[in-house]
Amino acid sequence: MALKMSKGELMEFLDAEFPQVTGEFAIEELGEMRIRTRLNVGERHLRPGGTVSGPSIFALADVSVYLAVLAMIGPQGLAVTTNCSIDFMRKPVAATDLIAECRLLKLGRVLAVGEVLIFSDGGEAPVARASLTYSIPPVRT
Amino acid sequence: MALKMSKGELMEFLDAEFPQVTGEFAIEELGEMRIRTRLNVGERHLRPGGTVSGPSIFALADVSVYLAVLAMIGPQGLAVTTNCSIDFMRKPVAATDLIAECRLLKLGRVLAVGEVLIFSDGGEAPVARASLTYSIPPVRT
Amino acid sequence: MALKMSKGELMEFLDAEFPQVTGEFAIEELGEMRIRTRLNVGERHLRPGGTVSGPSIFALADVSVYLAVLAMIGPQGLAVTTNCSIDFMRKPVAATDLIAECRLLKLGRVLAVGEVLIFSDGGEAPVARASLTYSIPPVRT
Amino acid sequence: MALKMSKGELMEFLDAEFPQVTGEFAIEELGEMRIRTRLNVGERHLRPGGTVSGPSIFALADVSVYLAVLAMIGPQGLAVTTNCSIDFMRKPVAATDLIAECRLLKLGRVLAVGEVLIFSDGGEAPVARASLTYSIPPVRT
Repeated sequence: MALKMSKGELMEFLDAEFPQVTGEFAIEELGEMRIRTRLNVGERHLRPGGTVSGPSIFALADVSVYLAVLAMIGPQGLAVTTNCSIDFMRKPVAATDLIAECRLLKLGRVLAVGEVLIFSDGGEAPVARASLTYSIPPVRT
Repeated sequence: MALKMSKGELMEFLDAEFPQVTGEFAIEELGEMRIRTRLNVGERHLRPGGTVSGPSIFALADVSVYLAVLAMIGPQGLAVTTNCSIDFMRKPVAATDLIAECRLLKLGRVLAVGEVLIFSDGGEAPVARASLTYSIPPVRT
Repeated sequence: MALKMSKGELMEFLDAEFPQVTGEFAIEELGEMRIRTRLNVGERHLRPGGTVSGPSIFALADVSVYLAVLAMIGPQGLAVTTNCSIDFMRKPVAATDLIAECRLLKLGRVLAVGEVLIFSDGGEAPVARASLTYSIPPVRT
Repeated sequence: MALKMSKGELMEFLDAEFPQVTGEFAIEELGEMRIRTRLNVGERHLRPGGTVSGPSIFALADVSVYLAVLAMIGPQGLAVTTNCSIDFMRKPVAATDLIAECRLLKLGRVLAVGEVLIFSDGGEAPVARASLTYSIPPVRT
């Protein structure tokens, strides 16, 4: 299964479809069924003490699986998250970017499942882990 | 188990501790082990087409359980989310507030578990459901 | 949406399709998008001290949503569990049946979502809560 | 962090504490924060068509994290599962053992988090993934 979209194409698609998050996320590395993404942590992601908020961690996990799925199926469609399970395990390092290591475990006809480990940039112990299911709409032909 | 905080005290605490979210959430109703909260949907919560974003839905579920726990244990502590499982079931109504109906199923010495149903304001079918676990820090004496 | 199967038809279907679990489960009450089921607790469900095992609690949650879905769509198909999130909140009462209160929150064309609260028979505080997603196969025509 | 229990000690402990599952599980490999376990699939784990049942897959994930935790903390305690999220992704191969690859992502003072990938023996695509939280009781001193 070859990639149907490049890093640049994914970022263009994201910026066009979700202008609200422009500049928040970056793709560090892209492979078959895999992606590494970055949350460019800014003021709006922080809680007192400089820690990154839970919703921001969720957003990073969610966008990572979304981009990994799109890279494999192309920009055709309206993949939507149907389920997310997330464990918050450690406090993120204050005011530091987050890195998500995402892997697709399944890419079926109607459902995709991805898992994500999230780290503070440079850290070794994961801040959070998440697994997400995306529903993939039927291809229009 | 009586409530240890009123609606007003909870909102004051939230505004003081999490100034970043001031104005986003409101408490509609508060009871023992129960709360109903509102997400005042604004531009920053929206995706194209006016739909409320996944991270905003997550944030509402998270804050609802947090406030329900605080109402029962008081403002002593640093309760943190350790786990969230969320199902996104329907598209929220465009540009409409979200209402969360939250119930605590367990309030233990170290862990609390809450469940949340989320609706578009006025809607009957839930947009999402979530269950969250909070870790409750030991009481300092 | 009327029920497509009665209690008796569901139990017959279950016995025919899953002979391994014959006698383990009973339907206490059946309604639209709702079911109450019983786990007839026996030796094989127990752990030392008489507590009901985690896998038995999981099995009860799983079968409850399965039966609730079948009651609504009929015995046509091969609905399969795709996701389960379960919180174990209290120790079940020793050697006591478990009761599951199950509600379908969504019954879509391809996915159904159900939530379940599980009690020791006669108990008021839930032993566990679970949410499950079932994938519904396309209707053969 | 060195291992506090060997493979043999873990199996002895499991047999003594959970005689109901004697013979069902085997430890293939044990390391720091890691374990590989096997479900010796027998009649009682099967569904029609020879597929391994959901509760059996759950049981394997659960016991894997349990053993991984015990190996690190020793047989002192009453670790209990508080949460499990599981995705069923593919049908297991008929009448074939299951292999669980388990890793502890967190081993805290009160909570441990493990993730598990489950394969049909010899298969390359995971049948299921699970993440579990265990509550670790305070050490008695």
